[in-house]
Amino acid sequence: MANVDQRGSTDQHDAFDAHAWVTADEACGMLGIKRGTLYAYASRGLVRSAPGEGRERRYRRDDLERLRARSQARAGHAAVASGALRWGEPVLDTAISGIGDDGPHYRGRSAVELARSGARFEVVAEWLWAGRWDDDVRFEARDLGIDVRRAARLVAQGAHPLDRLLAGVALIGAAERGSRFDPGGEGTLVRARSLVRRLAALLALAPGEEDRVDEALAAPTIAHAVAIGLGLRATKRAASAIDRALVVMADHELNASTFTARVAAGAGADLHACVLAALATLTGPTHGGSCDRMEALLAEAREPEDAARILADRRRRGDALPGFGHPLYPSGDPRTPPLLEAAEELAPRSVVLRKVRAFTSAMSLAGGEPPTVDAALVAVAGALGAGPGSAAALMAIGRAAGWIAHAIEQREAGFQLRPRARYVSR
Amino acid sequence: MANVDQRGSTDQHDAFDAHAWVTADEACGMLGIKRGTLYAYASRGLVRSAPGEGRERRYRRDDLERLRARSQARAGHAAVASGALRWGEPVLDTAISGIGDDGPHYRGRSAVELARSGARFEVVAEWLWAGRWDDDVRFEARDLGIDVRRAARLVAQGAHPLDRLLAGVALIGAAERGSRFDPGGEGTLVRARSLVRRLAALLALAPGEEDRVDEALAAPTIAHAVAIGLGLRATKRAASAIDRALVVMADHELNASTFTARVAAGAGADLHACVLAALATLTGPTHGGSCDRMEALLAEAREPEDAARILADRRRRGDALPGFGHPLYPSGDPRTPPLLEAAEELAPRSVVLRKVRAFTSAMSLAGGEPPTVDAALVAVAGALGAGPGSAAALMAIGRAAGWIAHAIEQREAGFQLRPRARYVSR
Repeated sequence: MANVDQRGSTDQHDAFDAHAWVTADEACGMLGIKRGTLYAYASRGLVRSAPGEGRERRYRRDDLERLRARSQARAGHAAVASGALRWGEPVLDTAISGIGDDGPHYRGRSAVELARSGARFEVVAEWLWAGRWDDDVRFEARDLGIDVRRAARLVAQGAHPLDRLLAGVALIGAAERGSRFDPGGEGTLVRARSLVRRLAALLALAPGEEDRVDEALAAPTIAHAVAIGLGLRATKRAASAIDRALVVMADHELNASTFTARVAAGAGADLHACVLAALATLTGPTHGGSCDRMEALLAEAREPEDAARILADRRRRGDALPGFGHPLYPSGDPRTPPLLEAAEELAPRSVVLRKVRAFTSAMSLAGGEPPTVDAALVAVAGALGAGPGSAAALMAIGRAAGWIAHAIEQREAGFQLRPRARYVSR
Repeated sequence: MANVDQRGSTDQHDAFDAHAWVTADEACGMLGIKRGTLYAYASRGLVRSAPGEGRERRYRRDDLERLRARSQARAGHAAVASGALRWGEPVLDTAISGIGDDGPHYRGRSAVELARSGARFEVVAEWLWAGRWDDDVRFEARDLGIDVRRAARLVAQGAHPLDRLLAGVALIGAAERGSRFDPGGEGTLVRARSLVRRLAALLALAPGEEDRVDEALAAPTIAHAVAIGLGLRATKRAASAIDRALVVMADHELNASTFTARVAAGAGADLHACVLAALATLTGPTHGGSCDRMEALLAEAREPEDAARILADRRRRGDALPGFGHPLYPSGDPRTPPLLEAAEELAPRSVVLRKVRAFTSAMSLAGGEPPTVDAALVAVAGALGAGPGSAAALMAIGRAAGWIAHAIEQREAGFQLRPRARYVSR
């Protein structure tokens, strides 16, 4: 068996591996195209490029390989099918969201604009779920349905927020016999609203923090509840920054956790189970877990000024770099600026924010890629003064809106997501 | 929003919906083919057929539609990609298992033959994980890593075994800070073995049953541990029937729960998280949950003689029928006979087994489909004298072997499963 740990170095975030970038001539050779075509591909975002040595730009090898695979696929159907799971041809239709150069659109409305306009997260979630815009919608849950004090004692001190959510949702499921299946229609929405409120409260599920669970359940909005769940003072300014983060994160089409929610829904699993499956997937270090890796990168720097040296060290070691470069946004993740601005507004002197800015400059000078929304979430969490894992928590609570929307849509579509594999003897 | 509950009636198990079956002439018309081609398709298992009125057989409409979609797909790539998630062209390569007319093969060895030969579940799991046949392999775990008594008190009396597993695995994850990520290689196998043993013990995670957790952890084999977890006397005969069920269920290529495990693994999630995501998906009523629906069907019959009337009632109501008809096995699920035989051997006068046989006869007389492995698992659980939900539990523990094998393989493959969707405005 090969070493599983090799995965890290083939990561998409690996901006500094020299092998990952090729010259324009090599790129043209790989695809059998002319320079003009290559430049057209680059401007359409099909191939990422970055400043190279001298005046020549360099081109991303894995983008070129994907294009080559896609062009070879025209020779047969099998290649299309296997490419379909790797950012290939669309595998299903959705009315929930689409991704443009300016980021995700939620049923036609730009997520970034919604976030900037100060839309409340619940309103956006309801919009994703039912295409209904209701400024007054409230997401409420009377309680968690479990003995919070007992449950908290089973969770480690300082347990990661995602682990608290996983444990909490699973315990709620195990305690609520007979209420596993969703009523459908409006009843499903009632359950969905309550589930999101419970998720926010579950952020405080750990020994010594349980008092905040009831407080979060009673808070005026989900953003306030998240602030309380994370152990912060739920000021209006904090809630406003959190709302912006949750709205920007609410959906991103078929990312791995949302796809998981759809597979579970296709098998008929209820909302709790769909969210549990998605949460489990989100823990992966190339998904929600990348926020934790970004936090670790920032922690390596004692001062913002250390960024350039740390980047160079990582480059020498061949280590992957979290928080930079997104396959869908070659010219920069459009979800990043509104969150960095929110962090700036909240705490202009935040050390975390300054570190994020320092790494961004250092990356840019080194010919690397622009920061992703993961980096921006870490900046917001830092500006809020929230503890480790809080960026991943913001991602999870925000994305829960999308998980639920996709689960509902998949159930209405009424088919199982059940692909086939080709057996190869090894 | 449409009524989510409609899904049930478009279920693949819906053998009695008249609309679901068409005559040979209609079938030929749908595909633009001659009778000889239709018969060839039917004999190759591409189209399911069943006795119709008079001498004419009828043909399954959804099989025909799938074939039509596939043939239309030759006109463009998009259709292939969207068909790929619905039993379409293979989306990835695997060395773990393939499905033949005689059921799944595990790295080239027939699952049914392995089960009949009395192979121990652990040996088969290790074979799936590492391609290594080791008759002496032991799956051990010192403890659950959580306070069992406290955890059990949070689970409802009589909670479903799948809910116990979900709660237990999530709590173990939340308690074990810092041990989330797998060491890779042999270390991953050590963790995998311990995880399977813990799953078996978690079957007893409910108030008043906790004593059996330690007993299950100490039992000589996983089959013995499962027997104890389910509250049964762990006799040699019981363990042997359980081993057979676990081995037959150990893998089935990219079924929904296993596919979920791969998506989670593709995002880098650890084994615990992959298994948690898969378990959540398994709760779906068209997946592991179908065992519960089969149990409910059997419970409707006070006597085996009631089967025909109950089937007719369901047919009149247009209700879906669980436990009969598998898309991949038009002429019968090859995993069913070895399990029915094990049930027969264990308890020849088992009422549950006699009910399964009665429903099978009634289905056959009504022109319906043969019983699936779900029906057979319910028969085994019944012959063992195990409580409600035990068939789903056997499925979960067995399938955990496959989930882990696919998670390991996906991590070695080193790419994310991240498909794209097409945005359609509705």
